[in-house]
Amino acid sequence: MMTIIAERINMTRKSIREKVWERDAAFITAEVQKQEALGATHIDINAGADPAKELDDMRWLTEVVSAATQLPLSFDSARAEVLRAGLALCNRPGTIINSTTAERARLADTLPLVKEFNTNIIALTMDDSGMPETLEGRQKIIDDICAHMTAENIALDRVYIDPLVRPVSTNPEQAMMTVGGVRYVKTHYPAAHTMVGLSNVSYGLPNRIHVNRAFFALLLEAGLDGAIIDPTADGMMGIMLATRALTGQDEYCMEYITAARAEKI
Amino acid sequence: MMTIIAERINMTRKSIREKVWERDAAFITAEVQKQEALGATHIDINAGADPAKELDDMRWLTEVVSAATQLPLSFDSARAEVLRAGLALCNRPGTIINSTTAERARLADTLPLVKEFNTNIIALTMDDSGMPETLEGRQKIIDDICAHMTAENIALDRVYIDPLVRPVSTNPEQAMMTVGGVRYVKTHYPAAHTMVGLSNVSYGLPNRIHVNRAFFALLLEAGLDGAIIDPTADGMMGIMLATRALTGQDEYCMEYITAARAEKI
Repeated sequence: MMTIIAERINMTRKSIREKVWERDAAFITAEVQKQEALGATHIDINAGADPAKELDDMRWLTEVVSAATQLPLSFDSARAEVLRAGLALCNRPGTIINSTTAERARLADTLPLVKEFNTNIIALTMDDSGMPETLEGRQKIIDDICAHMTAENIALDRVYIDPLVRPVSTNPEQAMMTVGGVRYVKTHYPAAHTMVGLSNVSYGLPNRIHVNRAFFALLLEAGLDGAIIDPTADGMMGIMLATRALTGQDEYCMEYITAARAEKI
Repeated sequence: MMTIIAERINMTRKSIREKVWERDAAFITAEVQKQEALGATHIDINAGADPAKELDDMRWLTEVVSAATQLPLSFDSARAEVLRAGLALCNRPGTIINSTTAERARLADTLPLVKEFNTNIIALTMDDSGMPETLEGRQKIIDDICAHMTAENIALDRVYIDPLVRPVSTNPEQAMMTVGGVRYVKTHYPAAHTMVGLSNVSYGLPNRIHVNRAFFALLLEAGLDGAIIDPTADGMMGIMLATRALTGQDEYCMEYITAARAEKI
């Protein structure tokens, strides 16, 4: 089962920011329902446009989004108080905290929330020494995250490890390191999940959708079971279902055919 | 360097068949040039609509296509006399015979043409016992083809091995066997090329383009260096260039960016 976190309700996007500040609930509701209709399993909320307003905006968005859908939410903030504000308003089974890293201060901030609200959590493979440049660096941080979660009594099936997606335009070898990170998690920590913020890979390139589609296929073949994407982006849900069929995760293409008949792809 | 054999000039397609039988050279010329503009390296010609007319149709098509482009052609027939008729009219450097199998009679028919006209050749992994159901079956035939070509003094860099694409809808495990076949060729016979008739994979499925795109990405990651595709199909050239960038075969995405600027993707 794939976890598809729909990324459109993100106030770092100008079009969303303006509508949130206008308190345009109808617009946000339509954005949520469009993403759900195409197969999202979670709706991400990022209210991080203005630090002074983030707490209020997260509260308003959580109320509007949770009224628009029965899906669990993914609360996207680096600030624990903002995460807590969202969780206090809506905490459905499957809720995701997006995200922690392996930085000690960030873990100390977020893991109490995971325990208190019994949520899942995304953990990015960066630590107090920064972002790893190599696959080995990612593997070391994956080991650290899994050891830390286990020591904190957080079951690994509640953890989505994100081996960091970097732009391929500036780092030719980074894309396959992310793929390698996914493969490492699935091999060494089969109970844990994997997650990527996929579209970073095409940052700075023209016609980004081609790169996003191709990267999704390669990651899925390596065992990816979660992604933060825009499900309305042309062909993204299609390549996801197609790759699952090709790699034997959708026998006789039943999910694929069902989605096509429902005009989701 | 990818070999992209453009597949649209194929008389098993009704729209092409009718135009050929009307001897509509302008229509065929436009089809050729559209495929070339998007990045085809070879134009395939398949005149196999009516056995009684195939020889005449191949001759007419070869004249029209070779006047429309300077690209080398790929002659697509199971009949040696038809291949010979095309080769006699146009035999540019890089010309491809499409195809032989490992069947002894077929090899005996086609390899003399490879030698006489100094062409490249596509070899499908099927032999006198039929189409292999397993990856091991494909590997055995790949070994046989490479041994046979070498014994016939045909250098392996003139051979494109096609590890057979079967519909994923009826054979859930076949797609990854094709990928495994490509990986086997690149590992064991690095001088040889690989080729697939890609769209067979989605036969019988709705919205086939998603499956074709996904399969292209997985095959390219495994080392595919040739494909018979419709370069005008939405997103196929895009996913090809994107996957090459992601897998380190297009450093700093120069080919990708150039194609995007030229509006090829």
